[in-house]
Amino acid sequence: LASEGSPRPAQYNAPLDVMTRYIHGERILSSIENLFPIHRSIAGPGTRKTIEYLQQICPKIHTLKYASGTQVGDWTIPQEWSVREAWIRTSRGDKIACLSWSNLHVISHSEPLDITVDLTGLRNYVHTLPSQPEAIPYLTSYYNSRSGFCIPHRVYEQLVEDDYRLYIDSKKYDGFLEIGEAYLPGEVMDEILLTSYICHPSMVNNELSGPTVLLEILRWLCVYGKRRYSYRILFLPETIGAIAYISDHLRHMQENIAAGYVLTCIGDERRYSYVNSRHGDSLSDRAARIVLRTINQNCYEYSWLDRGSDERQFCAPNVNLPIGSLMRTKYGEFPEYHTSLDDLDMVSVQSLDESFCFVRDTILSIEHNCIPHCTTIGEPQLGKRGLYPTLSTKSVHGQVHNLMTLVGYADGKMDLIAISSLVSQPVATMSRYARILERNGVIVARHQYKTA
Amino acid sequence: LASEGSPRPAQYNAPLDVMTRYIHGERILSSIENLFPIHRSIAGPGTRKTIEYLQQICPKIHTLKYASGTQVGDWTIPQEWSVREAWIRTSRGDKIACLSWSNLHVISHSEPLDITVDLTGLRNYVHTLPSQPEAIPYLTSYYNSRSGFCIPHRVYEQLVEDDYRLYIDSKKYDGFLEIGEAYLPGEVMDEILLTSYICHPSMVNNELSGPTVLLEILRWLCVYGKRRYSYRILFLPETIGAIAYISDHLRHMQENIAAGYVLTCIGDERRYSYVNSRHGDSLSDRAARIVLRTINQNCYEYSWLDRGSDERQFCAPNVNLPIGSLMRTKYGEFPEYHTSLDDLDMVSVQSLDESFCFVRDTILSIEHNCIPHCTTIGEPQLGKRGLYPTLSTKSVHGQVHNLMTLVGYADGKMDLIAISSLVSQPVATMSRYARILERNGVIVARHQYKTA
Amino acid sequence: LASEGSPRPAQYNAPLDVMTRYIHGERILSSIENLFPIHRSIAGPGTRKTIEYLQQICPKIHTLKYASGTQVGDWTIPQEWSVREAWIRTSRGDKIACLSWSNLHVISHSEPLDITVDLTGLRNYVHTLPSQPEAIPYLTSYYNSRSGFCIPHRVYEQLVEDDYRLYIDSKKYDGFLEIGEAYLPGEVMDEILLTSYICHPSMVNNELSGPTVLLEILRWLCVYGKRRYSYRILFLPETIGAIAYISDHLRHMQENIAAGYVLTCIGDERRYSYVNSRHGDSLSDRAARIVLRTINQNCYEYSWLDRGSDERQFCAPNVNLPIGSLMRTKYGEFPEYHTSLDDLDMVSVQSLDESFCFVRDTILSIEHNCIPHCTTIGEPQLGKRGLYPTLSTKSVHGQVHNLMTLVGYADGKMDLIAISSLVSQPVATMSRYARILERNGVIVARHQYKTA
Repeated sequence: LASEGSPRPAQYNAPLDVMTRYIHGERILSSIENLFPIHRSIAGPGTRKTIEYLQQICPKIHTLKYASGTQVGDWTIPQEWSVREAWIRTSRGDKIACLSWSNLHVISHSEPLDITVDLTGLRNYVHTLPSQPEAIPYLTSYYNSRSGFCIPHRVYEQLVEDDYRLYIDSKKYDGFLEIGEAYLPGEVMDEILLTSYICHPSMVNNELSGPTVLLEILRWLCVYGKRRYSYRILFLPETIGAIAYISDHLRHMQENIAAGYVLTCIGDERRYSYVNSRHGDSLSDRAARIVLRTINQNCYEYSWLDRGSDERQFCAPNVNLPIGSLMRTKYGEFPEYHTSLDDLDMVSVQSLDESFCFVRDTILSIEHNCIPHCTTIGEPQLGKRGLYPTLSTKSVHGQVHNLMTLVGYADGKMDLIAISSLVSQPVATMSRYARILERNGVIVARHQYKTA
Repeated sequence: LASEGSPRPAQYNAPLDVMTRYIHGERILSSIENLFPIHRSIAGPGTRKTIEYLQQICPKIHTLKYASGTQVGDWTIPQEWSVREAWIRTSRGDKIACLSWSNLHVISHSEPLDITVDLTGLRNYVHTLPSQPEAIPYLTSYYNSRSGFCIPHRVYEQLVEDDYRLYIDSKKYDGFLEIGEAYLPGEVMDEILLTSYICHPSMVNNELSGPTVLLEILRWLCVYGKRRYSYRILFLPETIGAIAYISDHLRHMQENIAAGYVLTCIGDERRYSYVNSRHGDSLSDRAARIVLRTINQNCYEYSWLDRGSDERQFCAPNVNLPIGSLMRTKYGEFPEYHTSLDDLDMVSVQSLDESFCFVRDTILSIEHNCIPHCTTIGEPQLGKRGLYPTLSTKSVHGQVHNLMTLVGYADGKMDLIAISSLVSQPVATMSRYARILERNGVIVARHQYKTA
Repeated sequence: LASEGSPRPAQYNAPLDVMTRYIHGERILSSIENLFPIHRSIAGPGTRKTIEYLQQICPKIHTLKYASGTQVGDWTIPQEWSVREAWIRTSRGDKIACLSWSNLHVISHSEPLDITVDLTGLRNYVHTLPSQPEAIPYLTSYYNSRSGFCIPHRVYEQLVEDDYRLYIDSKKYDGFLEIGEAYLPGEVMDEILLTSYICHPSMVNNELSGPTVLLEILRWLCVYGKRRYSYRILFLPETIGAIAYISDHLRHMQENIAAGYVLTCIGDERRYSYVNSRHGDSLSDRAARIVLRTINQNCYEYSWLDRGSDERQFCAPNVNLPIGSLMRTKYGEFPEYHTSLDDLDMVSVQSLDESFCFVRDTILSIEHNCIPHCTTIGEPQLGKRGLYPTLSTKSVHGQVHNLMTLVGYADGKMDLIAISSLVSQPVATMSRYARILERNGVIVARHQYKTA
């Protein structure tokens, strides 16, 4: 367990020994491959099947159900949607789009359709991305009655005058919006909330990387024996799922949640990034910031002004939870976003393993955080405890400098995240020093909880 | 009235329709032309005539009088000064300076004089600007007994040995320092103070642009039916006038004035600028700052350290009012300042119209300001109200982004000026969104007043 | 005395008249030359002799004694150490190191030694600095039993296989750690603490510049008749001396010390620098910062993160005193640091005189500090008091601008250090203006003390 608790400091892609190499990444990729074919939307059999898969891996996940028509906040739970068949055929019977080729071909929550139109008429039902002619765009129309197809612009440009048959065998019906939830109790009631979404069809970075990295984090948390915090993990349909959950649990969340993250677009290898919670100064923000600062790679930090996933709901004015978003490359910032190009090539065993470590280390920065208080008047004599050179040197660097920084700023006011920021060291590193100093009786480490 | 209330956003010189084109600028220029010949000083017939002109245009202006010798603050109201004739003549009778050519030729508040001196003696009475040889400098000696002339350095250099007669037919006598005041009640007692000065002789950017733009603002306020704030408008002699008014009304001012501006040097077309009130964080400062930020033109913001007009008095330590100065190019920052070159060529119908809009939009930023509070738990569903696209898109830009920013930051703590600053949009634009959202029942807008 | 109180503003090396030229620097250099040969360590005859020298110059210095074995904070007072003889000889009797050549040749607090070793054995006892082959490094082993020599790397490289006799005639014995203390009462109980250290052997910038500049400051303070603050001056062994003094006087120090400085490395001419106290916002920090800002020379400001001298102890978490370090070039930042190269060539009469002025002006910035409060409503009329031009000018610069800044910010909240910072003027300059304004009745200057 100790090795689980000590993150690879700073450099996430440092070589590990062969036995453990990318074990997390391999499991995550396997889940992505299994979940990729499922046709998810915000409510319907695809979402249900996805939750069932997650439950197979981790039985601690149970399902919450919200019946169609239920009022949640300012919103109404929609009907379930399913689609069996959808295609466009020319008069000679050649298909130019077909659900079985890609579930992006049909606009999510399309109404049933069976019409024959000429080329001009076809244009009213077909959407393309001229700037990415090879890509099928991903479109949804959850709350507005509409039918339509998405096809590559390259295909669209080659269409000739003809009679086209457009067929969508879909249905909407009263049912349930479903959320997968797991709760892991810790030493204290304070919760860390971790969420991701399960409402997009076959896309990888902006969909499956989120729930699969979260699933692996959940597995790791189950065996991480020293949990101080309790953990609440949610797999939910984006926006409406978050609003449904919030409207049902607001008071408990406001009283218990100490920190938390949305996991989204967390599979590619291009960068590490973070969207801050509303004010940018929450425990979540501070923990993510020190991790980004010690990764020494391409990192971006965004304001809540640039929000786009469920931190929109969790940080909304009357909700005010301390939730940010952990990401590799942010939605909207990579060209494959919301197209068929966001496929399995976006991720690798290595990039997924790094993403796991990024999330785990951020969580551990909170687990390891404490408020150290030096117990001596003046500096403690570290030399007699073997923690300081007994022969003088021209300057104090490295470990000893970090140790002295920790002692010097252990005033019972600054926490370990703040002290780590002073020297740009991972919290795990400074936590190791804090434990050494505590064992030597020269500091006392205290914790602060919301629910204490 | 609605169109009055909606400023031309961001680009003040955008084309308007022919009917309204520069109507404000035309009126302002006409006032400048009428007031230009009057020989003003801090007390005397010129100031009185100027106030009378302003009263002709707007009868709401009444006169306050402070008798010579009255103690105001640390100062004493001076005597009135008038001058009928002033000139320098060579022995052949050629004039080299004459009051009727320019009222800058005589130092303001000069004592009577009738002496004949040689070239060397002349130098004691004559002031020039060697760095601007064509210009007559503008000099005053309000509180020290002195007589003197100002002439172009070019003229001065050509003088030869001769007997020069210096003649000033002026007098000082007990009378009154006069201030023009107008008060327009609004929905609340909170006042916006607007002032300018009427104590300089024939100069345009640093004198007449101020009271004439303020006069046009006063006219506009009279017909702007939806005034929330009450307005107090003062036309006063600089420094001594402000001190006199403050010493008489300090308590009322401190209790009622929520914001306000000195208008000075507000006629030229070179830039827009602002001198902050003492601490740089008053409502006045914040409103002026967001306007400067959304003008998209050459803009300067100065600290109160760089003060020079009546914000000196209004923000002085024991006065502490939230008053800044709205300007185009700041006094001292343009070469024509305090010389005869500061004439009608400094301004145009267009530049004056823009100045009017600059002041009006700053005032409207305060009028439109409010504290929006979102009423929903989680985001409101804007799609069902026609305010959000029902078909998903790759990203959210422009109007929808600004609307979402308003909703997300409507926490009952940030005001509209602060939210507008987040997205660098005019307050008027964000106010339009706030009204839409309020009509749709998803936000409530509240106001905060000093006097409530 | 008045001239003592008025520092040379801004430019410390401005020419003075011949009579006073470098009088302080000359005295300081003389003390350095007298103290240089003494073999100091943290406890022993060298330190005692050093204190006795200081007492000869200033009889106000008395000695505090801490017996060996006494527990102070987390530390224990060590035994005294003395050494009579120490050398390394080849088999032919040639010395390659000898205490009489330089007292850096023996590691401070070395145990007695008399062994003969071959070249390989010698390496266990000899320390060099390969990167500075001409220099004898300076090493100490205060709290660990060890014997050893320091020699130039150049000498070490030329050693051949031989039998080397290593002889150290030293002894450790129960005795006292000694501190020189002087106390100068002022008008108020609030103390300014000034310290330096007396524990290094023959080195100049990092040792003797500190106590000798401090001695000259002490002499100056004795005759500076207008002391508002009381002064406590300490000459102590670094670290253990500070901890001993703190553990004995903590409560008094926390109640009385308003500001203070450690003087270290304050002899060379390369730059001026400062290590802030723990939070960087104490009176000490603010006074040092405005002096650095107005020196107009190569200046560095360090965070407490970069600490290394006794500000480590004085600002430690449970001590929390407002003490920073005044320096020329910081320890560790000049190549001669902690070697035999840190000799008399490091300093000059001029550089030492400048250092004296730097410390004196920093102290005077605190002595002169006050909270000015303007007494008028609106600006005072400075013209009638001869403090403002009676003939108007195009702009207000220099003295008048600084005077107006002082009046404008004299709100009873900002102190003179803060106001001086606004205009980047020495506090002494602004203090002169404050006294003029106070004499003219337009401001009142108040003081704030801890002990009042």
